[in-house]
Parts: sequence; C-alpha cells; structure tokens
Amino acid sequence: MSSEPLQDLRNRLPVLAQTAYLNAGTCGPLAWATADALADGTSRAAVVGRGPAYFEVLVSAHARLRAAYAEALGAEPADVALTTSTTDGLGRVLAALRLQPGDEVVTSTDEHPGLLGPLAALRNLSGVTVRAVALADIADAVGPATRAVACSHVSWVNGERAPEDALREVGRDIPVIYDGAQGAGAIAVDPASLGCAAYTGAGQKWLCGPVGLGMLWVSPAWADTLRPFALSYGNLAEPARGLDAEPWPDARRFDASAISAEMASAGATATELLADIGWEQVFARSAGLADLLEQTLREGGYEVAPRDRTPLLSVVTPDPPAMRARLADAGVVVRDLPGRPYIRVSTGVWNSEQDLQRLLDVLTA
Amino acid sequence: MSSEPLQDLRNRLPVLAQTAYLNAGTCGPLAWATADALADGTSRAAVVGRGPAYFEVLVSAHARLRAAYAEALGAEPADVALTTSTTDGLGRVLAALRLQPGDEVVTSTDEHPGLLGPLAALRNLSGVTVRAVALADIADAVGPATRAVACSHVSWVNGERAPEDALREVGRDIPVIYDGAQGAGAIAVDPASLGCAAYTGAGQKWLCGPVGLGMLWVSPAWADTLRPFALSYGNLAEPARGLDAEPWPDARRFDASAISAEMASAGATATELLADIGWEQVFARSAGLADLLEQTLREGGYEVAPRDRTPLLSVVTPDPPAMRARLADAGVVVRDLPGRPYIRVSTGVWNSEQDLQRLLDVLTA
Repeated sequence: MSSEPLQDLRNRLPVLAQTAYLNAGTCGPLAWATADALADGTSRAAVVGRGPAYFEVLVSAHARLRAAYAEALGAEPADVALTTSTTDGLGRVLAALRLQPGDEVVTSTDEHPGLLGPLAALRNLSGVTVRAVALADIADAVGPATRAVACSHVSWVNGERAPEDALREVGRDIPVIYDGAQGAGAIAVDPASLGCAAYTGAGQKWLCGPVGLGMLWVSPAWADTLRPFALSYGNLAEPARGLDAEPWPDARRFDASAISAEMASAGATATELLADIGWEQVFARSAGLADLLEQTLREGGYEVAPRDRTPLLSVVTPDPPAMRARLADAGVVVRDLPGRPYIRVSTGVWNSEQDLQRLLDVLTA
Repeated sequence: MSSEPLQDLRNRLPVLAQTAYLNAGTCGPLAWATADALADGTSRAAVVGRGPAYFEVLVSAHARLRAAYAEALGAEPADVALTTSTTDGLGRVLAALRLQPGDEVVTSTDEHPGLLGPLAALRNLSGVTVRAVALADIADAVGPATRAVACSHVSWVNGERAPEDALREVGRDIPVIYDGAQGAGAIAVDPASLGCAAYTGAGQKWLCGPVGLGMLWVSPAWADTLRPFALSYGNLAEPARGLDAEPWPDARRFDASAISAEMASAGATATELLADIGWEQVFARSAGLADLLEQTLREGGYEVAPRDRTPLLSVVTPDPPAMRARLADAGVVVRDLPGRPYIRVSTGVWNSEQDLQRLLDVLTA
C-alpha cells in the first residue's frame, strides 16, 4: 500500500515521534484523537452535567464501540460484549460455565496471568481441576472429565498460534475459550470460523485504546451453556421487571456495567483510525514487519523463539532485563518476560522499517 | 462554616455556573480538575507511551484513590477494593458468597436495578431464593434459610436509611451486604461500625468522579466467607506462582482488573476536593440542605416521601416526567423515578440555597 496513509497514521501517534515504540503487546500507542475524545467527552460532561442527555450519548458511544470492535474481529456486533479488559471477559465467561468441583479445564503451560488468574480462582477457590500442557498439544489433552478448554489464540510469550484446526474439532463438543489479548486487532480472527464458544480481547493493546476497555465475543451456538453469573442494569432486557428480569439473549448479557460515554468514544476513535487503514492491510503489515525482523535476525545468527505469522517476536538474549534497559535508553521500547530468556518485540502497522533498524542497532551492537 | 471554601468549590464545578444541578444521586458534578486529571494523564500516556513507567504511575494512582475512598467511607485502605461501579462491587461480593440453589437472600422491595440485577441472576440463573420485604422490616424477615441480606444503606427512592441497629444484630450471624450507592460520599458511613460484611459504593455519584469507578469495602471478619469468584493479575499476592497463586488476604483480592492510571487519578482528584472541605462538613451541609428543602415544602403543603437525614428527598407530584422536563427547561436538574409519583432531589455540599430556590420557584409555580 502507499506509504502516505501510514505516515499520516504515524503523525497521529505522538509516542512515535521520538520513540521506536514496539510494545503494543503490552499497550498500543495512543493517538491524539483518542486522548482528545476522552478529554472532550469529559469536559462536555463537566459543563453540561450528566443527566438524561449524557446517557443518550453513552448508549450511542457503546453502539459505536461495539460495531468497531466487531469489525476488527470480523464478527457480528450482536455477538460482541463490551468489557473492561481481556481478563474481565475471561472472568465473565469462565464464571458463566458454572463449573463444579471435579470438572476439568485444559489450558496451556504458557498462559498469561490474565487467564491464569481466573483459572487459579477456579482451581484454588472452587475446586475445579486445571490441567496445563504445551499449547501445541492442547487438543490431544482433552479427556472425558474436560468441561472446557481455555488458552491463548496467540501466545503472549512468542507469538505462536493455538492449533486452530484441532481446537475447531474440540469445539464441536465442549466450549473452547480463547484468550485473544494478542489476537484482537493483531491478526484476522473471525471467531465464528474458529468454532470457539468465546473469544476475549483487549482494547488497550493492538486496538490502541485507553486502559479499561476490552471485548468478549460469545457464540450464539453456546448461548444455553454460557449463562452470565452476575448481571447489571445494562445486561437486562427489561430491567423494569425487577427480580423477574431476564438477560438479553445476545452478547449484551455479558457487557461490563460502567463503561463511560467518553471511554467508549475514545475506544471507538482509536479502533476507527485503524479501520480507516483497512484491517487486511493492518494485519498484513503488522505481521509482515515481524517476519522481516525475524529474517534479518536469523540471517545475523540470532535465535528467535518459535512463532507463527503474528506481530509478536521474541529474541533470545542472555540478560533480557539488561537488554530491555539498554534499548529503552536508546528510545526503543520492548518488554522482557519474567523468567524467560527473551525480549519480546511487538510490531504494529504504525511501525516503520526505521523503528526496526533502531532495535537492530542496539540488539546487534 | 465560612462560605468562602464553598464558593471556591462551586467555582471548580462548571455545571453549577448555569444549572441548579440537583442530581448527584445519578451522577455528581465533575470538576475542571477532575476532567484535567483524566485529560493530562491520557496525554502523558500518549506522548511518553505506556511502558513500565506507566505502570508505576498506575500503582501509585490506585493507592491514592484507595486512600481517598477509605477516608470518605471512614475505613482502612486495606479493606477497600477498587471497582468500576456499585453494581460491579455487588456482583463481586454476591458471587463470593458462592450461594447454592435453595439458599435464600433477603432484600427490600425498593432496591435499585444495580442490586436487583445481581439478585435476578442469582434467582433466575443460579436457583437461589430471593425474598423482598419493606426496607424497614428487613431484619425481621431473616429466617433459617437466609444466607445473606443485601439491601440499600440509603434508599435511592426516597432517602430512607436501612434499619442499621437491627441489621447490626443480623450481621453477627449472617453476612449483611449494603448497596451504598447513595451512602458513600453522601453520609458518614463507617462500615465497620455497621457490622456489615461488605459495603459497596459508586465513584461517579456523591464522590463526583468519572463513570467507571466505585469501591467495595469488605470486612476482615468475613474473609473466610467472601472468597472471590474470579481473579485477575492485581488480585494475586504472588502472580508468578501461576495456577498456585493465592489472592491477597486484604481487599485487593476484589479489585477490578483494569482501572487506568488516569481514571484513578481523576477519581482521587474528585474525592480529594471534597476531603479538602472536610467530610463532616460535606455530610452536614448536604443533608442539611435536604432538611431545609423538606421543611419549606411541608410548610407549603407539599408532600415529601418518608426520608431520613440524608441528601436525598423525593417530592410527590402528579406527573413526575412532565415536572422533570419543566424543571430542566428552567435549568434545574433532578430525576423522576420510573413508576413512582416522585421527583427526586439530590442536594450536595456544592449546592446553594439559591439552587433550592430555583427548584421551588418551578415546583410551586
């Protein structure tokens, strides 16, 4: 694609002016327009007050955010719940399974604390059995006691993808729940075609929104199994029915309770900036930059952790925290992973070849 | 107290410049400083990026918000969890009770959808029995099957207070959970002295913060009973232990997963503006204005719903939506309550006698 829209996008993301920002796997770059949407919405609420007109703005901002997230995922808006984070979505959907002591969940050994937290609660506070195997072997680990599979779609450690075909088969019989923290906005997802019961994502990573937003896609096919454990006003189809109120039949039954109008507007603004580039181009360039980096590193004799075509890449380095600090001193932002021999590089559509060169200059010095 | 600090506070709340804003029971007035904290924090995150330094800011903003909320409640910070809303806190604590089909929760007939939602989920999706009686009779309704009481501390309908002494007795044997949406920041709470197991509050009402913040006070005495149902990274004492990780022993085990640095900073800024006035003065003036309004209305022959000394007051009026609209046209913001013969007036420390006069001018015209 022409470099003009990409340069325009870079100009909208102030962190890129001085920094080779390669850390969207933690938090993406915030655009001026995103910060402005949050600030303007809050100022308007301060001046006008937050009466009925505010709630009209809120409802329309939620609809706009839901549509933007649905498009980024390749899904129907009716199947997308608005959450505050990936882990919030995972907590909601795992609670909705209503697992009993002795039920088993299969997961992988390399999951993020955002999934391990909810699983630790199930294991240590609810008596559910949790079994962890390598991500590549996860489908084979499913046994007769397995009530659900919960794992990364894209590993936060090295950018490996889950065995989608094998899990599609598993998903015919038991619910498969994907932690899509490194999937949503990073790669083409199309959750319906994955055959999963639920797919959770983050708003502040590859979708460049503020911290405090996320999404939970839920499959209509698993609606009978995924019964929300806690409900709030917005989850109810007819809240006026009080204790007799039933949840919405669609994904709104899983919406978080208090996403402000201004947060939703900021999240939608951020997502739409990427949609304007075109999602296919976003996904192709993001992973393409990581592929290019991998090739350059391998040619230079560096060891790259096994990965798939995703915008994450982990380089083996003897002292990752020290390397991260050296890179930071040179204005290159990546992260190290506790207890692992890697620094992890996240390449977004907004990154330039020069950003990669700045990384390589320090890494190979 | 001198009117100077009050005029200074009013000057900081732009909605008061033109509007007699009497709707803090829905959302309080936002200060310029609160909007600025959110905007400045977001701009800084946009320019500097959200790497390790951002998370240091986040941790310190959370500590500041927790301390501010604790002071507003009259509680220890270690017993206060940060949530995204009252209903979020109610959902967390009701889930933590791990009620089984046939267990009974006693509530009142006049609860807000923020509590009715979680209770409807327990009743209709989890098979828990929910019994509703008048708020004044709630302690007497406790029977042998009752596993918990959940009700308003201050009724959102009319400003009545729960029977605190009777519920303190109930709380010796079974967990009492207060919906403090109209309590926190509105009246002196001191949850430990209430003898409750948990007290939930909102950040965007009487504490004048952005939508998306709240608090959940949990009693150390009920720690064995209140076991969180879902955990995220921040709830874990040692997240590096993975599936063996245990929750924090203090209220952090109930923290919501994704409150941004800038949201926490905005919420703390808002709460501290009130703390600077002094909480005793805040509570005395807020309820005092409602008392003054009640006296004036009764002297004028108007009917006021039964209430206690709180900053909420509901006036009987033949057509509440029409009256609300007439008031709005005159720049007076109150709310009507679906299906009830009231308009509800919320008087905050920031309101002036002239705000009340503007209300009376329309109401008694």
